[in-house]
Amino acid sequence: MPRFQDFALPHWIESQKGIEIPLGGSVGPGLSFKELINLSTDPESTTKALNFYDTDLTVRVGTQGSLELRKQVAKLYAGSDVTVTPDDVIIANATTGANLLSFQSQLSPGDHVICMYPCYEPLFQIPKQLGASITYWRLDPSNNWEASLADLKALIRPTTKMLVVNNPHNPTGTLLSASAQQAILHLAARHDITVHSDEIFRPLFHATDTPAPPSLLQHASYDKVIVTGSLSKAFCLSAVRIGWCVTRNPELKASLLSLRQWTLESTSLIDERIAAEALSDRCRDPILARLHAFAHRNLAELHAFLAKNPHAVAATVPTGGATAFVKFMDPASGRPVDDLQFCQTLMEHTGVLLSPASLCFSQLQPGDFKGYTRLHFTCRTEIFKQGLDRIGEFLSSPSYTALCAGSQTNGTH
Amino acid sequence: MPRFQDFALPHWIESQKGIEIPLGGSVGPGLSFKELINLSTDPESTTKALNFYDTDLTVRVGTQGSLELRKQVAKLYAGSDVTVTPDDVIIANATTGANLLSFQSQLSPGDHVICMYPCYEPLFQIPKQLGASITYWRLDPSNNWEASLADLKALIRPTTKMLVVNNPHNPTGTLLSASAQQAILHLAARHDITVHSDEIFRPLFHATDTPAPPSLLQHASYDKVIVTGSLSKAFCLSAVRIGWCVTRNPELKASLLSLRQWTLESTSLIDERIAAEALSDRCRDPILARLHAFAHRNLAELHAFLAKNPHAVAATVPTGGATAFVKFMDPASGRPVDDLQFCQTLMEHTGVLLSPASLCFSQLQPGDFKGYTRLHFTCRTEIFKQGLDRIGEFLSSPSYTALCAGSQTNGTH
Repeated sequence: MPRFQDFALPHWIESQKGIEIPLGGSVGPGLSFKELINLSTDPESTTKALNFYDTDLTVRVGTQGSLELRKQVAKLYAGSDVTVTPDDVIIANATTGANLLSFQSQLSPGDHVICMYPCYEPLFQIPKQLGASITYWRLDPSNNWEASLADLKALIRPTTKMLVVNNPHNPTGTLLSASAQQAILHLAARHDITVHSDEIFRPLFHATDTPAPPSLLQHASYDKVIVTGSLSKAFCLSAVRIGWCVTRNPELKASLLSLRQWTLESTSLIDERIAAEALSDRCRDPILARLHAFAHRNLAELHAFLAKNPHAVAATVPTGGATAFVKFMDPASGRPVDDLQFCQTLMEHTGVLLSPASLCFSQLQPGDFKGYTRLHFTCRTEIFKQGLDRIGEFLSSPSYTALCAGSQTNGTH
Repeated sequence: MPRFQDFALPHWIESQKGIEIPLGGSVGPGLSFKELINLSTDPESTTKALNFYDTDLTVRVGTQGSLELRKQVAKLYAGSDVTVTPDDVIIANATTGANLLSFQSQLSPGDHVICMYPCYEPLFQIPKQLGASITYWRLDPSNNWEASLADLKALIRPTTKMLVVNNPHNPTGTLLSASAQQAILHLAARHDITVHSDEIFRPLFHATDTPAPPSLLQHASYDKVIVTGSLSKAFCLSAVRIGWCVTRNPELKASLLSLRQWTLESTSLIDERIAAEALSDRCRDPILARLHAFAHRNLAELHAFLAKNPHAVAATVPTGGATAFVKFMDPASGRPVDDLQFCQTLMEHTGVLLSPASLCFSQLQPGDFKGYTRLHFTCRTEIFKQGLDRIGEFLSSPSYTALCAGSQTNGTH
């Protein structure tokens, strides 16, 4: 694989000094063994499951991960008329590894790949570096970042091998409804396109009045679908490097398994055990409920913040995931600020970290998503609230007025 | 990456039913937390290091692995006039992941790669699948599997980008001496070739009368060298998925780090902590001493076995690593048996598993290494002894005589 450019998002976060309120990432408040045990509905069993004193730390035979873990992952996709079995689950090295496994096993140089845009950068950069040509399926901010099926239809070529979607979506926090999923799969089926759905933020759904949408995996109509996920976001265990590819398609499964043996062989035994426990009936729902509570309170705070600053801030309030795509504008002219400069100045003046879209989510051309920043909202509420307060103060400061003036004269960077 | 064929070695091992004496692999007797604590020279500190009760299980910023772990890895390369610092160490997902990182960051389609032969299959198959063309640098069985520098010279082309060596060598258990290493590096320097040295079995050296050879990394003359290793073999912790790339070359380091961020991001936090403890001054040498003791006793048993069966068995007795490449012959004619059939029949009759070279280590043409099998010798001595006894009995059985006769009429498979 030829050399990559820098991966902008982590590079941005890691390069900032003096962060006091970190709202640039997407990982919820961490869990320890102690907290897992306290959350568990059966603390004694969880304590036992997390005791590794006598565990032999050598790899056992197993080509797709432990059966116990795969059973728990399969259960995450229960509840529709599609049956997902442990056999359909392939354990990988977090979602990063699961996405790599999917792309690397399916794509060859010359393949055409369509990817949602904006999007988490590796979802189009890895296919690109594997020699695929990429077309961006632009989401529409004027329509709450909803993707247009007509647009997708127009992007398909005879060489289109894969469609990459991210659901819930990072950075916008929006969702593909069940009917939108069906329409996508119908189109994919007609053109024999493999659908790769990164569902790392599933099941973080925030609407209380509508039922949670299914996984892209849960449609009986089409099985050339690879869904990826992990413990990193919804389960607050990103240091446990366990992720998964799930597919019901036998050919996709065989090629994933073959590549897994060459490039991964096995994942951490202890991490597999922790993951199986975190996803067990004892722990799964309490972990999710804890994070949902943070999200629920923080989204109410975000609503209030947007209402208080209508001329300087705009956002589609997220219905899924852990991040909102928030636009900052000059209150006088309504024009977007230079988001990189905004994030830098905000950081210097307030210690609040946001991630600038122009740097971290724009690839097509400079100025895509100008003014937008990514804001993480599944953190502890006291931190989130303090962050919004400091941003609010900043928006009323002379520094912000100066920045708005500068943004207009400097143009895009 | 296009689809691979099956990875023969693990496929062979996993497909066998009813294994009683597993001598087909290369992983030593496993360690648990309990055993690590018992081995440690400071059990109290080790107990504390292996307590994860309060550890926050979310990823912290860190682009190449924890500093504590990289310090311990760097120490493995102390003791020459070359200084290896924690900055030179990049943590990866076991040696499998470290090798992938090296190949994928350095190789592009059209590059030419020279690889030792025979060899652990991924060391040439991964470069091949990345689009490189492979030339095999054949080791010479008539000269104790020593590689010829004149042969290597003749294989170099203007497009040669990388030389892949494995030291100690799997499957033969032989070593590159310090002077052979120097000659290789001199040649590589002249042609600007990156040397990839898989040193997963380091520091398993078995000669008591000669000093241990250096790592390929420990030569001041040339720094375009990437060495890989892990806890899987010498440290008996293969389920702890921690490996490393080490290089002193700034450009190689930068490209490894960039790819790591896109394709790995981080390794397991708990595995990193276990690894740092296993490689600490408290635990490192006791772990190695335990495994060396098994190897020492078992190599004496292998010597005796070879002396007892001079007409049916031959092998270069290993000076490094965990495996011997053992040849079985028809005692009447001296001709090699069909090693796949031999391993299958041996397994059925005795429950002893060996790995057949024709299936697991031959790629050039059918019949390369005919008669050879890989035998693991860093296991518990009672198991090893029982395995050799059963093989000895099998060699005297009518089944073996029939197999020898069949091998000659069937030709190669």
